Amino acid sequence: MKSTLSLILISLFLFVGIAHSQDEQAFFIKDIYENSLEKGQCDTWLQFLSDSIGGRLAGSQNALDGVDYTLEQLAQISIVDTVYKQACTVPRWERGEPEVVKIKFGDNERTLKALALGNTIGTGPQGLEAEIIEVFGLDTLKQLGRKNLEGKIVFFNRPMNPKRINTGYAYGEAVDQRVHGASRASKYGAKAVLVRSVTTQNDDLPHTGVQTYQADITPIPSLAISTNDANFLSAQLKAQKVSAFIRNTSKMLGDVISYNVIAEIKGNVNPDEIILVGGHLDSWDVGGGAHDDGAGCVHSMQVIKTLSDLNYKPNRTLRCVLFMNEENGLGGGLAYAKESNRKGEFHLAALESDSGGFTPRGFTCTGEADVLPKYLANLQGFDVFLDPYDLYLKPGGGGADINPLKSQKGLLLGFKPDGQRYFDFHHTTADVFENVNVRELRLGAAAITSLIYLIDQYGL
Amino acid sequence: MKSTLSLILISLFLFVGIAHSQDEQAFFIKDIYENSLEKGQCDTWLQFLSDSIGGRLAGSQNALDGVDYTLEQLAQISIVDTVYKQACTVPRWERGEPEVVKIKFGDNERTLKALALGNTIGTGPQGLEAEIIEVFGLDTLKQLGRKNLEGKIVFFNRPMNPKRINTGYAYGEAVDQRVHGASRASKYGAKAVLVRSVTTQNDDLPHTGVQTYQADITPIPSLAISTNDANFLSAQLKAQKVSAFIRNTSKMLGDVISYNVIAEIKGNVNPDEIILVGGHLDSWDVGGGAHDDGAGCVHSMQVIKTLSDLNYKPNRTLRCVLFMNEENGLGGGLAYAKESNRKGEFHLAALESDSGGFTPRGFTCTGEADVLPKYLANLQGFDVFLDPYDLYLKPGGGGADINPLKSQKGLLLGFKPDGQRYFDFHHTTADVFENVNVRELRLGAAAITSLIYLIDQYGL
Repeated sequence: MKSTLSLILISLFLFVGIAHSQDEQAFFIKDIYENSLEKGQCDTWLQFLSDSIGGRLAGSQNALDGVDYTLEQLAQISIVDTVYKQACTVPRWERGEPEVVKIKFGDNERTLKALALGNTIGTGPQGLEAEIIEVFGLDTLKQLGRKNLEGKIVFFNRPMNPKRINTGYAYGEAVDQRVHGASRASKYGAKAVLVRSVTTQNDDLPHTGVQTYQADITPIPSLAISTNDANFLSAQLKAQKVSAFIRNTSKMLGDVISYNVIAEIKGNVNPDEIILVGGHLDSWDVGGGAHDDGAGCVHSMQVIKTLSDLNYKPNRTLRCVLFMNEENGLGGGLAYAKESNRKGEFHLAALESDSGGFTPRGFTCTGEADVLPKYLANLQGFDVFLDPYDLYLKPGGGGADINPLKSQKGLLLGFKPDGQRYFDFHHTTADVFENVNVRELRLGAAAITSLIYLIDQYGL
Repeated sequence: MKSTLSLILISLFLFVGIAHSQDEQAFFIKDIYENSLEKGQCDTWLQFLSDSIGGRLAGSQNALDGVDYTLEQLAQISIVDTVYKQACTVPRWERGEPEVVKIKFGDNERTLKALALGNTIGTGPQGLEAEIIEVFGLDTLKQLGRKNLEGKIVFFNRPMNPKRINTGYAYGEAVDQRVHGASRASKYGAKAVLVRSVTTQNDDLPHTGVQTYQADITPIPSLAISTNDANFLSAQLKAQKVSAFIRNTSKMLGDVISYNVIAEIKGNVNPDEIILVGGHLDSWDVGGGAHDDGAGCVHSMQVIKTLSDLNYKPNRTLRCVLFMNEENGLGGGLAYAKESNRKGEFHLAALESDSGGFTPRGFTCTGEADVLPKYLANLQGFDVFLDPYDLYLKPGGGGADINPLKSQKGLLLGFKPDGQRYFDFHHTTADVFENVNVRELRLGAAAITSLIYLIDQYGL
């Protein structure tokens, strides 16, 4: 009965006292939904970002094109007071030529579907060849030791746990192999690393993503292979020795300047209380960065657009922030928080959408331990507005780009759309506009706009 | 905060008294989810129904093949005591040769993507040609009258309201044109009817579905056209006269016998209280009837399979019922209720899944006015189990096939998956297994199994 019956009871009590005011907010939220569903522009923006510009790896020209495009689009929204870009430092890494991973087993060969992981070095133009050792986690390396790993290609093959309902949680459990696999394997003298793609699907899509080198190790190449290929390789390894030829020409080119995009609407009553809504403009280079995180950017832009369409005059200062470089170092998020702290700003609330453009399920929230209980208590009053839209609000993460704002002691919120299909597309060539459902995307924007509106109306 | 904070408070109180028992149920539900996600067979069954058998129009051989296949699969589940088929009378309608709808405007022609609607007559082998009159609802016909409509093709073009969040509701608002358009237009002498497909998408897929002829009218052909074609046609009609040539060879062949499929597990404690879970095995002839309603059938089969895998011994009698002919007359649902009433049975609860194989959102419930309040009050106790899975339980519809059981004064429940994408596929050639997400399908089965288990454990 998920709060519906208790909601009816609560509503009866509340309506005696403040029915009139609540009606106003409830009707405005209905307007937000109808405007978003009927006149949403978020899908038009997303199609341009994903299909016309394409993957927007931080440091690339595409990322700069994304900055210019969103800056120009935000400037056209009449409610917006100022639009500007904020410089930040980001790494420039290049994938290089198409990757080759060819395994040899007995008299057979098979070419695997592979993508170099972010920040990896290349193999050199000649490539490298070695025997493959399969492991199912970082800890296994210590047991195997240098005698088993030296000169080998380590194949990390622990799957995402299909039994987890929360795919984000399952991703978190599985992703350590991708991020740290190369560094750990290098310590034992491995020549390269292959990593099972982090997805619940068994398919032919390799998933890229960030990997980092520890300062004290010798960097070695690190590539993801598709889950179907990982399963095939694993089966071969049970029967016989398998070696692989790997070739990639990826390289790190050093730091460059890129930009966050910021649009601001000054508050009429409490201009010093900032409410931020944002996503990250950068993506991986493959695909179009549609769900990750073009969706979050256009959600945030749509919040401003819808409020503008509805002639809303915010009490507090609203900021739409499109962060640069979430995927590969958080350059934009860190630069934004640093500048905000320098100015002595206070973000009453910051909401990030970085979980895709799927049907909205709710929001998670977090903050400093000394202020969070007060916020949680106050948020209960929003139940009556969010329940009719089947949106939850519960403790949980905010978002990578907004986490650096935590010390300002505001509320950090994460938008949570349904997560079952997210890792079907995440960091792949399939993360394109075609795989986004327009109604789901627009509903996400409506849900976020509603919460931003409630915070602006009631404070926290 | 959607009941999460209040849930914590409720839980604290409850846990003092009955923590031990609740733990047992909560752990069992976790087992249900894990088993469904890891070992679910529902997708294998659905792939066979949708791809190997295909569309299962009541009265067709495919529908009978579906009966045989599901009967055989259910018989293999060890927990099942009896499996049988139950005869029912269904109409046999045939679509005939591929439909032709060609519009002529000025010197131009365009062929529209069309599908004959269920039960329509044909145009005859020569087809028919007439001028098109566009209307936006049944009521407009009276205003236009016989002088404007006689000898014309009436084009019903009222779209589904995109502003509705609940797509099922929007469908209900728009579908009268499809169901009653031909009968109403015929009263004013129209020669045929074209109907805008009932979907929120603008695309090239025509959507079929049931249409019925009133007893007192002259039947006329009735066909759906795609929304893109409807928009194109509408634009032409604003500029000039448009005529159409229509040809279809559909025909009604009269009544035949088909079957419901029933699997039963006798209850150990209260065998006379029946808990039914079901979907409908028939579908339209185009596509594979994957979301509508192969998904509901395999959900229901998976309920039994999961409980069997977990060695569960039900207190009450569980029945998995796959109904025949929901789409075109409810022959199966009516036959089932008639036989059940004849035997003096009592269905404590009946749950239908007929809204697709998408991510579960919750359940709606209904019943006779004199018993429903008691059920609703008792259902509140399930909050604590369903909230962790973000599942609501609220008043609303049960399902077409189970509604005839209402007079037994049990609880009727409808499974509600996310509905945003349902009408992208509904009654089209795109309603195939490829458009079902396996994790979403399995989660639906897990959600339903959990509720069936709770009702079996606690009663109502």
